[in-house]
Amino acid sequence: MYNISYVDGIYQNYENSKVNINDRGYHFGDSVYEVVLFNEGIFYDFEGHLNRLFDSLNSINIKFSFSKQSLKIIIKNLIKINRVSFGSVYIQVSRGIAERNHSYKDMNIKPLLSIIITKKQNNLSDEAIGVKAITLNDNRWARPDIKTTQLLPNVLAKTKANNKGAFEGIFIDSEGYVTEGSSSNIWIINNDNEIITRAIDGKILSGITRKSIAKFADLNDLIVKEKKFRKEELYKSKEVFLSSASSFVTPIIEIDNVKINNGEVGEISVELRKLYFKNFTK
Amino acid sequence: MYNISYVDGIYQNYENSKVNINDRGYHFGDSVYEVVLFNEGIFYDFEGHLNRLFDSLNSINIKFSFSKQSLKIIIKNLIKINRVSFGSVYIQVSRGIAERNHSYKDMNIKPLLSIIITKKQNNLSDEAIGVKAITLNDNRWARPDIKTTQLLPNVLAKTKANNKGAFEGIFIDSEGYVTEGSSSNIWIINNDNEIITRAIDGKILSGITRKSIAKFADLNDLIVKEKKFRKEELYKSKEVFLSSASSFVTPIIEIDNVKINNGEVGEISVELRKLYFKNFTK
Repeated sequence: MYNISYVDGIYQNYENSKVNINDRGYHFGDSVYEVVLFNEGIFYDFEGHLNRLFDSLNSINIKFSFSKQSLKIIIKNLIKINRVSFGSVYIQVSRGIAERNHSYKDMNIKPLLSIIITKKQNNLSDEAIGVKAITLNDNRWARPDIKTTQLLPNVLAKTKANNKGAFEGIFIDSEGYVTEGSSSNIWIINNDNEIITRAIDGKILSGITRKSIAKFADLNDLIVKEKKFRKEELYKSKEVFLSSASSFVTPIIEIDNVKINNGEVGEISVELRKLYFKNFTK
Repeated sequence: MYNISYVDGIYQNYENSKVNINDRGYHFGDSVYEVVLFNEGIFYDFEGHLNRLFDSLNSINIKFSFSKQSLKIIIKNLIKINRVSFGSVYIQVSRGIAERNHSYKDMNIKPLLSIIITKKQNNLSDEAIGVKAITLNDNRWARPDIKTTQLLPNVLAKTKANNKGAFEGIFIDSEGYVTEGSSSNIWIINNDNEIITRAIDGKILSGITRKSIAKFADLNDLIVKEKKFRKEELYKSKEVFLSSASSFVTPIIEIDNVKINNGEVGEISVELRKLYFKNFTK
């Protein structure tokens, strides 16, 4: 029994977890979302994710009346009802239900909140498994910095990667620089052991896990630099890894059929993964 | 009584016209759509819209099992049930319902068809009312040529236009050329009475109304040219108009506060509007 969702004020079983087809999230992708991992009552970066949800809502001018506190209560309640110990919380807020019209000017509509709990295989192992990736042109809209459901390019990128036996698709901007993965931030480690990721420059999402990793690395005297790097630098890096709410720190050991670190999981990536877990389990 | 929709095989009243929150259209904008106008049994460009729906489905690899013929039967039935004489048909097909995962590789899911009928004010008047427009940067993803529900940029553009007292937002690409409107194609008429619109070059949708207008103009010895034009050319054009399934040919008489044709509806725009109607009413 872990199939109860929260939809517009009501706890519903799977069959009844539905929204009206006139929801603007369905017609236009006019909605924002967050994913948070949890393990036996511990949420990974709960505050960070909820804060970003409200930032996203503000960015596209959705007037949402819930407080962070009430969201937390609903989420904890929903996890309890579903009796899940390890899993993810998916939170989506759409602009609401209205007769289809691109413009939302003067529309008096109520945003619609839906929350889904998914039970997952516990992957909180310090031992990181290396994954493969491919690169592809970043063909997303100009505001990937807002966490909206404009995700078809990401869907197509991830599927293309999977079809090629890879785990992640890495977007490359029109100037040849890495932006981010289809559902992750991308990091490299150079021969000076500098840990490098692109700055929050409007072309990537402000990753919550990304921010925590940078903080924990810094606290442990590792050198983190925010700067753009090219696709070619990926191939030549000492280590490459991705970060995301559900993959934490995951080493990338092959990109476009080029082996990274001889196809082995790198030491610093593993250290960062451990640091990340450590900070949420004390 | 015009509130019956078709959702995944069933004719539903408004309250029950719902999709599961795990529909990929809701989570990712992983869906395509069409809008068709109708008036007392006459559909405007029915074949063209249905053909494009199947093109869109193919473009993002959604395996849809319905035939054009069965879609037509459902749509006609739905209009009859709703007893609407003038209105629009909205058709959406999503990839289907599945546990949230970006990749759809190996997912055995059934596409979900929903159809909504909307009663409209009959706007089939030969007398065109001129509208205002604004320009803004084209910030959409790189595949606006596919009619998907990745429409948040369009939503934001149309709302911005409305907030400025304008009807339409016109997208300008990074090189300063007009691409298209937030929900229309854009045309100019120069001093040689040439009717000009951007070619189908991957940066605009292949407008069905656009295609019909070009055909009818050509049949009536008007000169139609497909080429890119700059924002500055818009301001200086003899006439400017937009075309769409629901606005047909609609003159634009002011752009960014610059009057076009002294703020008057132009003759050739009106002629094209008449030609369009004439061809669907014989």
